Amino acid sequence: MAKSLEDIFLQELQDMLSAERQITKALPQMVESASDEELKTGFEQHLQQTQEQVNRLEQVFEMFGRKPRAKKCVGMEGILEEGREFMEKINEPHLRDAAMIAAAQKVEHYEICAYGTLITWAEQLGQSDVAEILKETLAEEKQTDQKLSDLAKSHVNEDAMAS
Amino acid sequence: MAKSLEDIFLQELQDMLSAERQITKALPQMVESASDEELKTGFEQHLQQTQEQVNRLEQVFEMFGRKPRAKKCVGMEGILEEGREFMEKINEPHLRDAAMIAAAQKVEHYEICAYGTLITWAEQLGQSDVAEILKETLAEEKQTDQKLSDLAKSHVNEDAMAS
Repeated sequence: MAKSLEDIFLQELQDMLSAERQITKALPQMVESASDEELKTGFEQHLQQTQEQVNRLEQVFEMFGRKPRAKKCVGMEGILEEGREFMEKINEPHLRDAAMIAAAQKVEHYEICAYGTLITWAEQLGQSDVAEILKETLAEEKQTDQKLSDLAKSHVNEDAMAS
Repeated sequence: MAKSLEDIFLQELQDMLSAERQITKALPQMVESASDEELKTGFEQHLQQTQEQVNRLEQVFEMFGRKPRAKKCVGMEGILEEGREFMEKINEPHLRDAAMIAAAQKVEHYEICAYGTLITWAEQLGQSDVAEILKETLAEEKQTDQKLSDLAKSHVNEDAMAS
């Protein structure tokens, strides 16, 4: 049972540790499936970034005097499963790139939302140092989401349309 | 197999029809569980809005000469399941309100992302009338997300902290 704001903060932190770990496992397949070079490089860079984000979460657990512990994030599991199913139905590379961007943005939006909550709760708990660490990750997720939007609009959707 | 941008647009539309229907089923329980009056009213209003959003999706299917068809949205299923599990672990009303806002914002972010993609694809397909309809829904989802953030920061998180 969660009995304080700190309890629900820590539960959400466990959820995100699971989410980030699931993403590090999903990204190599996305790198491999991407046809567009910019998209492939983008996924590769985001994999490195995600590993650093896992480290930051572990650091936050320690700042609360806890051992890092993940609790299966059912939301991320659903989003990633849906993305995989979507990919499997597409053979044409340009079309698959467009669909992969859509799926990856769902991942980013889940994270943008969850980190937003964690930051607000950390601030409410008076843990501004923790909030600052999480803000670094939030900024990266927002940047990744923006890059994916830009890539789709610059040429990926057009290529998909012409394919 | 999806073979064109229109195919993947329609698949995403089926996904969202399922997502919105799942949300209309989940919201009455959220209305009942909310303790804060503003939050309760917000969920009630969003239920009405969601029913209208379902109508808009059905209208878009018809504009493509298709019968409205839903395909189970596994992403939304995961997000809603996670929200339910989270709620069940909290007895204290103020704390549950704070956690419910966090869960509801994940729902909104999934939708903000999916409608963003649908709008971009509709424009790419030259269907600006479809894009305009979907933009109405997107504006509502963004507004709901903002209201939830404002509510959390105005007093719900503070009440949860004091509880």
